Amino acid sequence: MQIQRFSISRTKDEITRAYSPINLASVDDFAIRLVKFQGEFERWHTHENEDESFIVLSGEINFQTEQGDFVLKAGEGVVIPKGLKHCPKAAESGEMPLALIIERAETKRLGD
Amino acid sequence: MQIQRFSISRTKDEITRAYSPINLASVDDFAIRLVKFQGEFERWHTHENEDESFIVLSGEINFQTEQGDFVLKAGEGVVIPKGLKHCPKAAESGEMPLALIIERAETKRLGD
Repeated sequence: MQIQRFSISRTKDEITRAYSPINLASVDDFAIRLVKFQGEFERWHTHENEDESFIVLSGEINFQTEQGDFVLKAGEGVVIPKGLKHCPKAAESGEMPLALIIERAETKRLGD
Repeated sequence: MQIQRFSISRTKDEITRAYSPINLASVDDFAIRLVKFQGEFERWHTHENEDESFIVLSGEINFQTEQGDFVLKAGEGVVIPKGLKHCPKAAESGEMPLALIIERAETKRLGD
C-alpha cells in the first residue's frame, strides 16, 4: 500500500524522444503515461481489446482514425475505442505536443 | 465502437459544486472525471478495492492521509492506494482547485 506521487512538468523535461511513453503511475491495472508527439506515428494500428485515452496538455494532435480525422488542442481529450484503427500525427509546430495516455497497463504501443 | 471526445475547459465551466465529479469519459471499466474542491471533503474514507488517482489542473489541494499529508499543485498527481484512509482539502484561495480523477467506474465517492 504505497502512495505514488508524480509531476507532469518534471517528467516532461525528461522526455526527449517522441512516441516513447513514460509511466507516471499505476492505478489498479491501468497506467497513466506521458508522451510527446512529433510527425506521424510509425503505423496505423488497432488495440483489439483495450480502449485508449489521450488528453492533450500542450500543442495540437491530429487523430487520424478509420472513422475520420480530428484535431485536439490542449485541454481536449479522446477515447479511441477498442477495435478502431488509428494513427496520431503531431500538428506542425516548433514544440513537440504533450499528452497523457490512460489505458490498461498491458496495452501495446504498436497495437496487436 | 464509439469515439468519445471531451473538453476539460468546457466541462470545467459547467461545474458549480465542489466534490461533485463529472464523468468526462469511460475507458474500459475506468472513468475519467473532473472535480472541483472547496474546503475539506465531507469525511475521511477508504476505498477498500480501488486505487484512486488525482491529477491537479489548477489550484492547490492538501491530501490528508493516514500516512501523512502533502500538498499537490497544478501538474502534480497522486495515486491513493486501495485501503488507505484519506480526506482531501482545498488549499485556501479564491478559486476552487480543479483536478482529474482516474479510477474504476464503480468507485464510490464516499468510500466503502
